[in-house]
Amino acid sequence: EKVLAAIPQKVDSVYLDSLAQWKAEGKAAVWLRVPISLSRCAAAASAHGFTFHHARNDYAMLALWLGEGESRLPGFATHQIGVAGAVVDESSGKVLVVQDRNKTKNAWKFPGGLSDPGENIGTTAVREVFEETGVRSEFRSLLSIRQQHNHPGAFGMSDMYIICRLSPLTYEINFCTQECLRCEWLDISELAKTSETTPITSRLASLLLHGLEHGFDKIDLNMEELPAVYSGRFYQLYYRQLPILKL
Amino acid sequence: EKVLAAIPQKVDSVYLDSLAQWKAEGKAAVWLRVPISLSRCAAAASAHGFTFHHARNDYAMLALWLGEGESRLPGFATHQIGVAGAVVDESSGKVLVVQDRNKTKNAWKFPGGLSDPGENIGTTAVREVFEETGVRSEFRSLLSIRQQHNHPGAFGMSDMYIICRLSPLTYEINFCTQECLRCEWLDISELAKTSETTPITSRLASLLLHGLEHGFDKIDLNMEELPAVYSGRFYQLYYRQLPILKL
Repeated sequence: EKVLAAIPQKVDSVYLDSLAQWKAEGKAAVWLRVPISLSRCAAAASAHGFTFHHARNDYAMLALWLGEGESRLPGFATHQIGVAGAVVDESSGKVLVVQDRNKTKNAWKFPGGLSDPGENIGTTAVREVFEETGVRSEFRSLLSIRQQHNHPGAFGMSDMYIICRLSPLTYEINFCTQECLRCEWLDISELAKTSETTPITSRLASLLLHGLEHGFDKIDLNMEELPAVYSGRFYQLYYRQLPILKL
Repeated sequence: EKVLAAIPQKVDSVYLDSLAQWKAEGKAAVWLRVPISLSRCAAAASAHGFTFHHARNDYAMLALWLGEGESRLPGFATHQIGVAGAVVDESSGKVLVVQDRNKTKNAWKFPGGLSDPGENIGTTAVREVFEETGVRSEFRSLLSIRQQHNHPGAFGMSDMYIICRLSPLTYEINFCTQECLRCEWLDISELAKTSETTPITSRLASLLLHGLEHGFDKIDLNMEELPAVYSGRFYQLYYRQLPILKL
């Protein structure tokens, strides 16, 4: 693969005259990085078959596949990540739920929202719960994920919605009236029975009830932070913690 | 919010003269959709503060925030999704593992790769396992997810790596020699002990061993398909199936 920077004169002549040569040399693809202020280079390149691979802020990345058959270039990000937090008060058996202001059918659900770029799942859950309800909490586990394609709120891309279990650090509700119509600590057993909720929330309520009665270790995917092979970075692994052997 | 189509004369004059008026009218943001062949409109718009929100194939979407404070426009997709498949042969206690050809340290891992746009998690796992190993399989459950930011293979974006459990439909290995150096059915107990593997694979092997000995219902997040509120669409929910009550 060859990576080029967009320089107007070159895109119009030098680079594009070289495409046949690069192909003959066995180059599989050409990348062209175009600053937004030089965007006319993108139009010039498109006349030679380049298309947008992605664009962010002040630049666009174009690509042209020179190899055999269909492009085997890796695609750009396909999913937005949304996270909801089920804040469970184990002592009372209640969970924090909201009703959205801007939905036709008012149904109880867990507070949540989209992850910011580079934000960990648990951080999103804690932040969104606080922004919507005023309740401080801490991350405990991952419970469930939902995948949905062609999502209307994701510019036609896909959405991964992750439901976490959180523990409350404060209990007083001070909810965001722009986003929420109602906000309450609701009995988990009631949430598992009511029809005034979403299919996902209802299933999660049953799961939480099971955790409350039999131990959350039965339903939790716990988080472990591990060092990445790329030095200095870490990743988060979520998986079921095995019961400790009693010898 | 206002959505505009890029028309060269308008971007250079009409649209941009109107920005102050739209702001005065209380518009929070302006979107500008620019076909790649008219990319010079993107340069003209950037002089007025527009930046790239995203770009795909033959168009770029630019945005300008007119509201108070920082932009509250939703971002574009942030994550690529990778899926690995642990094909478990319950009768022999073995699992299908590969060693990548292009890695410095040869370690056993589960075959897998990136999801295509719009592809379900389980479909990716089954497809990638077949492409790498020649083994046909079917999706059983989701076991674990890993989140990693600033991923070198994701153009600086984030990566969500999901490990699934699959059941074999065929057993004969015919592995891809371009991608893999070795491919074997390995004892899960051996995979859980060996140092010739990755930290994730090792943890998952212990989890699979637990499933083999105590039932996979103890470790599985099963999939349920549910209708989305947007008519005609479905989403996939992965969560722990509760034990059936024995009365």
